[in-house]
Amino acid sequence: MSTDKFVIGLDYGSDSARAIVVNAMTGETLATSVKYYPRWQKGLYCNPAINQYRQHPQDYIDVLEGTVKEALAACPTGTAEKVVGIAFDTTGSTPAFTDATGTPLALLPEFAENPNAMFVLWKDHTAIKEAAEINELSKKWDIDYTAYEGGIYSSEWFWAKALHVLRQDEQVRAKAYSIVEYCEWLPALITGVNKSSDIVRSRCACGHKAMWHEKWGGLPAENFLTTLDPLLGGFRERLFDKTETADKPVGNLSQEWAERLGLTTQVVVAGGAFDCHMGAVGAGITPHTFVRVIGTSTCDIMVASYEEMGDKLIKGICGQVDGSVIPGMVGLEAGQSGFGDIYAWFKKVLEFPLKNILVESSLIDETTKAKLIDEISSQIIPALTKEAEKVPVSESTIIATDWMNGRRTPDANQMLKGTITGLTLGSSAPRIFRALVEATAFGSKAIVDRFRNEGVQIDNVIGIGGIALKSSFVMQTLSDVLNMPIKVCKTDQACALGAAMFAATAAGLYTKIEDAQHAMSSGFAFEYKPNEANAAAYQDVYDKYIKLGSFTEKELFS
Amino acid sequence: MSTDKFVIGLDYGSDSARAIVVNAMTGETLATSVKYYPRWQKGLYCNPAINQYRQHPQDYIDVLEGTVKEALAACPTGTAEKVVGIAFDTTGSTPAFTDATGTPLALLPEFAENPNAMFVLWKDHTAIKEAAEINELSKKWDIDYTAYEGGIYSSEWFWAKALHVLRQDEQVRAKAYSIVEYCEWLPALITGVNKSSDIVRSRCACGHKAMWHEKWGGLPAENFLTTLDPLLGGFRERLFDKTETADKPVGNLSQEWAERLGLTTQVVVAGGAFDCHMGAVGAGITPHTFVRVIGTSTCDIMVASYEEMGDKLIKGICGQVDGSVIPGMVGLEAGQSGFGDIYAWFKKVLEFPLKNILVESSLIDETTKAKLIDEISSQIIPALTKEAEKVPVSESTIIATDWMNGRRTPDANQMLKGTITGLTLGSSAPRIFRALVEATAFGSKAIVDRFRNEGVQIDNVIGIGGIALKSSFVMQTLSDVLNMPIKVCKTDQACALGAAMFAATAAGLYTKIEDAQHAMSSGFAFEYKPNEANAAAYQDVYDKYIKLGSFTEKELFS
Repeated sequence: MSTDKFVIGLDYGSDSARAIVVNAMTGETLATSVKYYPRWQKGLYCNPAINQYRQHPQDYIDVLEGTVKEALAACPTGTAEKVVGIAFDTTGSTPAFTDATGTPLALLPEFAENPNAMFVLWKDHTAIKEAAEINELSKKWDIDYTAYEGGIYSSEWFWAKALHVLRQDEQVRAKAYSIVEYCEWLPALITGVNKSSDIVRSRCACGHKAMWHEKWGGLPAENFLTTLDPLLGGFRERLFDKTETADKPVGNLSQEWAERLGLTTQVVVAGGAFDCHMGAVGAGITPHTFVRVIGTSTCDIMVASYEEMGDKLIKGICGQVDGSVIPGMVGLEAGQSGFGDIYAWFKKVLEFPLKNILVESSLIDETTKAKLIDEISSQIIPALTKEAEKVPVSESTIIATDWMNGRRTPDANQMLKGTITGLTLGSSAPRIFRALVEATAFGSKAIVDRFRNEGVQIDNVIGIGGIALKSSFVMQTLSDVLNMPIKVCKTDQACALGAAMFAATAAGLYTKIEDAQHAMSSGFAFEYKPNEANAAAYQDVYDKYIKLGSFTEKELFS
Repeated sequence: MSTDKFVIGLDYGSDSARAIVVNAMTGETLATSVKYYPRWQKGLYCNPAINQYRQHPQDYIDVLEGTVKEALAACPTGTAEKVVGIAFDTTGSTPAFTDATGTPLALLPEFAENPNAMFVLWKDHTAIKEAAEINELSKKWDIDYTAYEGGIYSSEWFWAKALHVLRQDEQVRAKAYSIVEYCEWLPALITGVNKSSDIVRSRCACGHKAMWHEKWGGLPAENFLTTLDPLLGGFRERLFDKTETADKPVGNLSQEWAERLGLTTQVVVAGGAFDCHMGAVGAGITPHTFVRVIGTSTCDIMVASYEEMGDKLIKGICGQVDGSVIPGMVGLEAGQSGFGDIYAWFKKVLEFPLKNILVESSLIDETTKAKLIDEISSQIIPALTKEAEKVPVSESTIIATDWMNGRRTPDANQMLKGTITGLTLGSSAPRIFRALVEATAFGSKAIVDRFRNEGVQIDNVIGIGGIALKSSFVMQTLSDVLNMPIKVCKTDQACALGAAMFAATAAGLYTKIEDAQHAMSSGFAFEYKPNEANAAAYQDVYDKYIKLGSFTEKELFS
């Protein structure tokens, strides 16, 4: 027991953060603690009508102390002293403006209630206009700075958001000195950084979202940025040239934070990265393995050796960045903008009689009514699944596309919309649900096919995230459609476990992240194997999905 | 009062028959009686799994006496003696085999329980194979006998059904002497016909469904029929050469039926015709007016003068027959195979949580549960309508096709299926419902456009049937999409009223049916006028409907 060393993995998601305390030798999780962001939970600083989603940096600070202390309290006495490393993964691109000390402006009293001084959450879509301007200028410029980000810049990303806020808010504009990504700021915070230029920059965040690339010497050229808008002038110089992979330490815990967290200043803090990227590491990513975080949407991660990548630019994905996942390999990101959200949409459609009619009935009392609505709602997806599972693939004559939330990859297009065809008077709710599940699987196959067509080999799939663990029907359908086995991780905290692996590597316990993966893996809970006959039958249905999608893209939503 | 004359219109639908007693001078309805077919109501002789729907002739006889007597009993004393005419409309094509006396075989003791000896209801689809054979042979034959029936023979029609039954049933084959349509048999029955060759044949039924046309001397040639199958040999000769329009008397009430109905043998019986055809007359059809019977599906009727028609063959409709609606004009039939059925389908999809989950709940007792499910179900369409009506046409971005039950016209194609596109995560149940209502209106416009493109002028629309009277939302949408005013008849018994008009004409009270229409019309309950701005906006959406339909027809369901 005396030789045990522990690390803490911190996973900062959209609504909550979780801390896990992990044995750095075995990967065993000793304790987990989850805390919800208090201001965010109240809906503060957001305006869903215009897709404005902002998070207060104080929310992040508040849950940091709470989760770490709670998790440590649940561990055997003496664990805290043996913690040697901490790492963070966060959502992204989630940037905020800082002053010269690297402090997000919303932590200054005069900006405490200003949403433009806060972190602009990944799903904030207020910068659509700015993203369009970046795309337009990039295609005209001698260097296409979007080349390693799939060729299409998104309103969800760093520069679009920064420019939008600068244009919107004179007060922020006057005070803004630099910009920081969420996953860079937390390590800076707890290592006591007090100069913006001392913040260690994340290879993952900067390479995938800020158009940073070694080929053109870092960020886009100053005159590109000022041509976009003179308001961006000067930021490039005050930002950074260099970025680091997350296996490198960024410093040790500051005295203040060692005390606040009940740890020592010996604790090494690793570099930050995005949640899905660290999640892929936690899930056991290797070359030729397609790791999917499957929830409301999917984030899909691959790694490829320099030999396999060569000079390839993979068309229509979300980016390819050297070291964004595993140092020494190219990290590739893709994803579907709707997955579980599509099932949730259909559930909501089916709830119409409950939420609009049952709710008004005078046949039962209000308490029973509320209970009944909750009970029925919670059973809709399980009941649909139970019936849909009985339908043989030969009866998959309803065909849908999975673009109810647009399409992220392959070939981002937010104008696209979903379709359901093959409907008859006998098309029941479970059969439609089955078609939607198949559609999400076909969307997955389109991504896999794109990687393969561009010369990236994929042999098997690892699933993490809520749907991977919960729906055997969805996962079996996915395995059949992809005609590949899918392993599902035992851990339901793959992102935090990945962060723990980076913490252990940064703390020097492993020489490279692959060694940490090997030692600390959770292993797999189960494996789905494709049914050969179903896989063959799905080929025809998939061809129709492609035809249907291609028609709607060209003729209806262009 | 002493000069008053009355007529009885009898409308024999799919599930029930109704009799109305009408003042033949004013069109005023004195009384109505409805009776359900007793054997049919018990589900006898049918097998929905194979779309076998048969009706026992005794069912028709049982309700005849009941409805007429009940209706007369509700009239002032002395009405019965002043009844001068009776006419029938029925569903069709609904044929049965008869013996040499013209008696449907099922009325003979040895055939009393044999479904093949009964009337084969219009929606019976057991003869799909036989219809395909007729179509194949017609296209090879020197005369295309399907030419005046839209060019595609249906499994729902006379010869396909007759051949199917002959092949199926040796006993029927041995006894079968001739064949009769439902609308021909009832007049023959009550006028005491006792020879098959004395049955007066309906222009409407024979012209639209039995490939009868003057151009080729009546029914298809004997060698055409025997090439189809030698089993058909000899029937042509025993059937008929001539057909009559329904304004002609077929005889007087027989002594027996005068007694059974409480009427006199002075009562004139008019020729029979199909329900929608007489319904169009009852609704006030004139040239350039498109009359639609709008219910689960639609039956659309037009009349055109000989001048307007010339030698035209209107492509892809259900037939064009001289005198099938109004003698002296060409009657044209079209229709949508799904209309209200499409809304009912969506309702059924939305009922999933009620019928599959609520039904299992232990939170409420069984009685309350059953009441609650009924209450909610009955409110689904009204609640959808209420919300859908609020959506402006500018937000009609969900686009659907109305082919959930295939397509009848233009260009029959039972392989087609329905589509819904333009779906987003915000697509609510009422917005989808709105798209379905628009789709049924677009399907209507496709029929109107076909008539116009083929040179038949349409200036306005008259609606009858359940949906026309009940849903102002559907009717206003239809008016906007068609960009035409739509009048809705005051009577909810347009078919029976049409029959009453034929009865009055056959009885000699009017020299032609148009005069009866003029005198006996119910008038209109209301008129929908197109909203100019909506009509213009719908043009774009309709173009997308056409594109979407054309793609699915050519690429997915061919």
